[in-house]
Amino acid sequence: MRVLITGTEGFAGSHLAEHCLAMGDEVWGTIHPGNRCSNLVGILDHLVLRAGDVASPGFLRSVLREARFDVVFHLAAITFVPEAEREPARTYEVNLMGGLNILEGVRTESPGTRVLLASSAEVYGNARPEAMPLREDAPINPSNIAAAAKAALEVVARPFVESYGLSVVIARPFNHTGPRQRPDFVCSSFGEQIARIERGAEPVIRVGDLRPKRDFCDVRDIVRGYRMLALKGRSGEAYNLASGRSVCIRDILDTLVAMSRVQARIEVDKARVRAIEVPDIYGSTEKIEKDIGWKPEMPLEKTLRDLLNWHRDRLSCGRPA
Amino acid sequence: MRVLITGTEGFAGSHLAEHCLAMGDEVWGTIHPGNRCSNLVGILDHLVLRAGDVASPGFLRSVLREARFDVVFHLAAITFVPEAEREPARTYEVNLMGGLNILEGVRTESPGTRVLLASSAEVYGNARPEAMPLREDAPINPSNIAAAAKAALEVVARPFVESYGLSVVIARPFNHTGPRQRPDFVCSSFGEQIARIERGAEPVIRVGDLRPKRDFCDVRDIVRGYRMLALKGRSGEAYNLASGRSVCIRDILDTLVAMSRVQARIEVDKARVRAIEVPDIYGSTEKIEKDIGWKPEMPLEKTLRDLLNWHRDRLSCGRPA
Repeated sequence: MRVLITGTEGFAGSHLAEHCLAMGDEVWGTIHPGNRCSNLVGILDHLVLRAGDVASPGFLRSVLREARFDVVFHLAAITFVPEAEREPARTYEVNLMGGLNILEGVRTESPGTRVLLASSAEVYGNARPEAMPLREDAPINPSNIAAAAKAALEVVARPFVESYGLSVVIARPFNHTGPRQRPDFVCSSFGEQIARIERGAEPVIRVGDLRPKRDFCDVRDIVRGYRMLALKGRSGEAYNLASGRSVCIRDILDTLVAMSRVQARIEVDKARVRAIEVPDIYGSTEKIEKDIGWKPEMPLEKTLRDLLNWHRDRLSCGRPA
Repeated sequence: MRVLITGTEGFAGSHLAEHCLAMGDEVWGTIHPGNRCSNLVGILDHLVLRAGDVASPGFLRSVLREARFDVVFHLAAITFVPEAEREPARTYEVNLMGGLNILEGVRTESPGTRVLLASSAEVYGNARPEAMPLREDAPINPSNIAAAAKAALEVVARPFVESYGLSVVIARPFNHTGPRQRPDFVCSSFGEQIARIERGAEPVIRVGDLRPKRDFCDVRDIVRGYRMLALKGRSGEAYNLASGRSVCIRDILDTLVAMSRVQARIEVDKARVRAIEVPDIYGSTEKIEKDIGWKPEMPLEKTLRDLLNWHRDRLSCGRPA
């Protein structure tokens, strides 16, 4: 089938492009003109790329007019919380209006195209311990701008299904990591610091709060789930993509340290501690298993090893993250 | 105090301006350059007006820089459902981004200013009979674009309270009517048709579905509630403004017909029947009564009589609605 991926140069976007190519799809992608495309190096020749800003309705309309897509995967978003907090207006413009532009573009140009919206498990926000594992019908209570923009997009999408008959599936991935993740995110930050120390940097790993427990999947499992949801998910429904259990951030650090060849001191960096932290989150996988038969397959050990090796490779050839 | 009202030329906006003036406030208002100001005729000399589009961030920023406001009442919105359905992108631009521009403008220019966001009871959508009276913690499930944009704005507002410490109160008015309501809305449509028949038009009243039951307040009670909420509502909270009981649309028609001096035939006009109808909605008034002591005071009879008289006056001097 022919698919369009927005934010294809991003972390999940590049893995999704790779996965769709492997499944035999014709893959088109949008990239933001201001972003580097280093994530796409291995597959650039196999993609049809269009550069533009998803926050501009005209850009998406023009791409949707160029070809008839079976599926649009909408991944373009500002996902790093501190960046979103600094620029709330821009975050809403990209995360919310970008999604609206997709929906409105599909409605007017190509109403038969399936839309997968990549939302986030962060829409559940500060859920109470007794609410775990979080089911899709848990209250929506986002506690940061990036998550609020995703939650608002889920609301915005509803009448496009109910009033205009579009086919829209919403994915709520829990934390995911793996090769190519920006070192702004916790696992990748640990991986990068360890890889640097292996190359002679000061043996100190700077960390934030190590106590929170999160539900981690491999990004490659997540994007496989996106494609399955696009094919088989029920329109108008939201689906968790989760492992169903949580792991302490400290255990992730310990696992990565154990994989490395170095000794390092752990130092808490207050700038890395977020203001509002939810102590423990994990998601229910019941709905997605039942409806489409997806569950994660990659062990966390392998994910972390691949992530660390990616940083090692990257540093050894002097490439930026 | 000094207040700014967006959408001050609108139905509720004009009544709110009048009420604030009566309470001794200094009243500033924004009006959309494309709209008529006939609702403001009696009070134009007492208002400071600024013309511009709330969907443009620069416009609101510039108004917020001109003076320091104690309260911003954000009322500007596309509220007529068929109009919203025809232009979803524009509806989201005005109803959602307009609200975001207010929040972002206040955050950057005047973080001490209180914000009252006029949302809508329609955010509850197709609630089940056993959910009545609807409490503020009922699920959010909007079933049309205008309501979805309001619901999304409520979500968008949340981090402005939690992350940036703005003081924002959300009002969820149920149906309200009274003088100056556009005849696109059901009560005002009945009133206008009856006033026309009194002046010699064909004695036929065209109606939509007369069976739905709705919770009606007088617009003057609603705007009094807005001002009380701005003064005393808890930041980050949403409040119903409701009568607590529902009235059948047919009873409203009968009341208006009984007030008139004419006989008329009732004719169902299919174009007036909305696709998705909720049979019965009424709201719980417990929270707002307890927190700020508001409850509606105007009897529905008086509201409908004032509405009918307004149409009579208007038609007798040839003024448009």
